[in-house]
Amino acid sequence: MIDILIDKIKEKNNPTVAGLDPKLDYVPEEMKKAAFEEYGETFLGAAHAILNFNKTLIDALCDIVPAVKPQCAYYEMYGLEGLWCLKETMEYAKKNGMYVILDAKRGDIGATSQAYAKAYLGKTALGSGEAAAFSADCLTVNPYLGTDGVKPFAEECAANRKGIFVLVKTSNQSSGELQDLKSGGKFIYEHVAELVKEWGADLIGTHGYSSVGAVVGATYPEQAEALRKIMPHTYFLVPGYGAQGGKAADVAKSFNKDGLGAIVNASRSIMCAYQKHGGTLGDAARQEAIRMRDDILSAL
Amino acid sequence: MIDILIDKIKEKNNPTVAGLDPKLDYVPEEMKKAAFEEYGETFLGAAHAILNFNKTLIDALCDIVPAVKPQCAYYEMYGLEGLWCLKETMEYAKKNGMYVILDAKRGDIGATSQAYAKAYLGKTALGSGEAAAFSADCLTVNPYLGTDGVKPFAEECAANRKGIFVLVKTSNQSSGELQDLKSGGKFIYEHVAELVKEWGADLIGTHGYSSVGAVVGATYPEQAEALRKIMPHTYFLVPGYGAQGGKAADVAKSFNKDGLGAIVNASRSIMCAYQKHGGTLGDAARQEAIRMRDDILSAL
Repeated sequence: MIDILIDKIKEKNNPTVAGLDPKLDYVPEEMKKAAFEEYGETFLGAAHAILNFNKTLIDALCDIVPAVKPQCAYYEMYGLEGLWCLKETMEYAKKNGMYVILDAKRGDIGATSQAYAKAYLGKTALGSGEAAAFSADCLTVNPYLGTDGVKPFAEECAANRKGIFVLVKTSNQSSGELQDLKSGGKFIYEHVAELVKEWGADLIGTHGYSSVGAVVGATYPEQAEALRKIMPHTYFLVPGYGAQGGKAADVAKSFNKDGLGAIVNASRSIMCAYQKHGGTLGDAARQEAIRMRDDILSAL
Repeated sequence: MIDILIDKIKEKNNPTVAGLDPKLDYVPEEMKKAAFEEYGETFLGAAHAILNFNKTLIDALCDIVPAVKPQCAYYEMYGLEGLWCLKETMEYAKKNGMYVILDAKRGDIGATSQAYAKAYLGKTALGSGEAAAFSADCLTVNPYLGTDGVKPFAEECAANRKGIFVLVKTSNQSSGELQDLKSGGKFIYEHVAELVKEWGADLIGTHGYSSVGAVVGATYPEQAEALRKIMPHTYFLVPGYGAQGGKAADVAKSFNKDGLGAIVNASRSIMCAYQKHGGTLGDAARQEAIRMRDDILSAL
């Protein structure tokens, strides 16, 4: 349920999420060296180095940042050990009170989307019982297959108080190739926005927002402004602030007048703050997270 | 490289692929019981049951069917143990001479797609060396993010003789909601088809086909016919035959006059043939695979 995220955002007065996209290059040398010495230059070594990295960031951020967003690709690339690290990272973040948005961009035909929904937002049947595979609070979802590819995720949200963010207008440079095509006087991303609104209509929480949210890139502020109007009750996950070029004034377009309606992600600028500004990994990340929070709040 | 797949298709005179989407309900009772008794009603128990199921199918099919297509969702839902089962399944299929098309429908912004491409089609850097996380021959990819979300996969194909199939027109009922919107006189799936053609233009192999292929559902034969003309050098992965409703005459539209150009997937009808027609899991699957092959060859 989006309410859980909104409560955390309000409590910390901070509408931002820290992306955990841990390339090995971002991990401090001594941390990497220690893990490789203990476990070898293996996936297990990398997984331990990254887990240590993530825990340090979570420790440094958990009292001021409401959520983390691990990006699945950066764990899958380290194989089973990488996925172990993802699972441990999610558990650690939740234990420390953070909301976990898993950025996996899943989406398939109905029966398969249902399996993904069970994997990340629900439980899997096992003989007479059931168990959770990767228990995120929220998942990013790709809309290209239409309603029957997204509904199973929305159903799992309803059943388990979880959330999804559906890709509407992504932050990357070539997002316009398909998303900005015009059909019947409307952009494709506007058609998707209308579907997102529909998919989430039955899942509005106590703060007036739906558990079916939208991904809207900070790099396209004009489009964000238009989308904000189409989807007044939809929460936006806003990537592209910082390293990708989005400014506070740009991300402000994704918020409603109630100061809610969007959560802004930064990954590299927080994870790599120590490389750019010096200081320890945790201290530098915290400083940058505070700077980012204040920058965004000042623009609202 | 698509050449490797085409050689296997020619060698076996069989343009089909067996989907491995192993719901626990599909696994024979005694196989499930044995695994749960040994490993408990746990993810590990499920993973062993499914691995046994998959190996039995691979043993029964590997001399007549050129490829398998595991669907990631059905492994991710069993957690780390499920992903172990996926890895073992892929290794076992390759050891038995089958081409592995991993159906994961990944796609993200450039840097993240690169991480996914390394995870499934390439190798991950680890200190001074590198290692393969999940070594598929081929991966399905979602095009919603445009060129910079797909190019990293195509680059990995070029570097490692691998392939991708990009979603163009999917087999599910609501695929038309976005894919059939019309822009500038062309359907969105036609726009995607033109991009797919462009992405694969530099990767044409010795048989005249590109390593960047397209997913085109058997349930939309008219659209397949149009797409066949737009993308003459693109291999089609055709889901939707059998249980989803596609007939041999429908899938025939996806082939070129050279008898090549498409590989047709069936999952449930093969995996569950023993439930429908009796006989052992392996024998029934083999009978159904032969029936399917002959049915499709007779329509070409």
